[in-house]
Amino acid sequence: MIRLFVPDDLAAGRPIALSVTQAHYLRDVMRRSSGDEVALFNGRHGEWLAALGLVERKAVTVVPRTRARAQAPTADLELVIALVKRARLETIVEKATELGVRRIRLAITRFTQAERTNVERLAAIAMEAAEQTGRLDVPEIVAPAKLDAILADWPPDRALIFCDEAGDATPILGALAAFLRPDALAASILIGPEGGFSPEERAHIRSLAPVIPVSLGPRILRADTAAIAALSLWQAALGDWRP
Amino acid sequence: MIRLFVPDDLAAGRPIALSVTQAHYLRDVMRRSSGDEVALFNGRHGEWLAALGLVERKAVTVVPRTRARAQAPTADLELVIALVKRARLETIVEKATELGVRRIRLAITRFTQAERTNVERLAAIAMEAAEQTGRLDVPEIVAPAKLDAILADWPPDRALIFCDEAGDATPILGALAAFLRPDALAASILIGPEGGFSPEERAHIRSLAPVIPVSLGPRILRADTAAIAALSLWQAALGDWRP
Repeated sequence: MIRLFVPDDLAAGRPIALSVTQAHYLRDVMRRSSGDEVALFNGRHGEWLAALGLVERKAVTVVPRTRARAQAPTADLELVIALVKRARLETIVEKATELGVRRIRLAITRFTQAERTNVERLAAIAMEAAEQTGRLDVPEIVAPAKLDAILADWPPDRALIFCDEAGDATPILGALAAFLRPDALAASILIGPEGGFSPEERAHIRSLAPVIPVSLGPRILRADTAAIAALSLWQAALGDWRP
Repeated sequence: MIRLFVPDDLAAGRPIALSVTQAHYLRDVMRRSSGDEVALFNGRHGEWLAALGLVERKAVTVVPRTRARAQAPTADLELVIALVKRARLETIVEKATELGVRRIRLAITRFTQAERTNVERLAAIAMEAAEQTGRLDVPEIVAPAKLDAILADWPPDRALIFCDEAGDATPILGALAAFLRPDALAASILIGPEGGFSPEERAHIRSLAPVIPVSLGPRILRADTAAIAALSLWQAALGDWRP
């Protein structure tokens, strides 16, 4: 079953005009025609089964028929990731979407080499990954900001799970189990660039009240590996991978 | 510090001729010269600090000086991964190396579309990832074989952690904690292709005595995400990420 994200409201019988990209995909790539069924979601109204209506050269409409799943809230889990090279950043966005984050913040740190990225392209990757993974929403991609700005006025009730390479942090699984209760807290997972954080950055991060420094084992991990590992651990210990 | 894998024996004062690729990397890319220090490992004799000796146009020698780390055994953790598309397979090999697997077996299953891959290229990726991540060995890449052949005569004392998308498996963290004791068992993690396993394959896998079917949550994960997540969980719950 093809799943498509649409920005429109979803209601039975109310036709929706698909984007040019989606119309092209359904008509020319997947060879769908009038009457075929797809699934739609918009982040607000659950998942709907819908039938293709008009399939024309430049326009495809779909008509929602029945709601298949009710909208459910996504855990308030956020990834704060230093700007890393484009291919790895795209991997991280795809994987973080599969792993159920609500939001991805891009951070400019002392050792990041870029100050910008194509946020629209990352948002498109998140949308496609959300369609494939079966989510009912698409994570928000927040444009790059300096780490200091992101950490300023950090909410006291938002846990900052700091993946700290320096070696004296608590192993992640025990740290998550000891410091957090399932569903009790909003949490952000913070991953540095390939060169790590500067000593000043590290001291500042560790001085914040809701910080939980965690270790991801004895080997050096690339940023994308660290992000996927930490998000998986969070979902398994505290999120929707639990029984 | 640059780390290099070499096949040679490592002993104080015994010069080693680097490969053409490594010589080019040190001389032309990293601009190293005679007397500079690098680290060497070979999977048998720990990690050695070594000094560059001759740096010539086509040949670079290194001389081990002191042993910095003793060889330690790698956990008997294996990844059995269905052949997936090249880019994702390469990601999996890099990440599995960072996550400390001893061996990667490539499996041909009902829904894999390829029957071959460039094993030498995957081995080169594993070697580079081992150099970067700080391991003392390089995981073995086993050439593709049919899943049936891999599962035939499966050792009764090797746990087969089957990442099962079908939905009724136990959540992975509880399953690992309930069924395995740290360091007590050899374990393999089995990940299917993007199309999943066929019903016959799934029934056969689940009929094996040492199988532990596990669930990786409610969303559909790509093969690379599933592999990284399962390996991370294993290391955190049972491996060298523990306190």
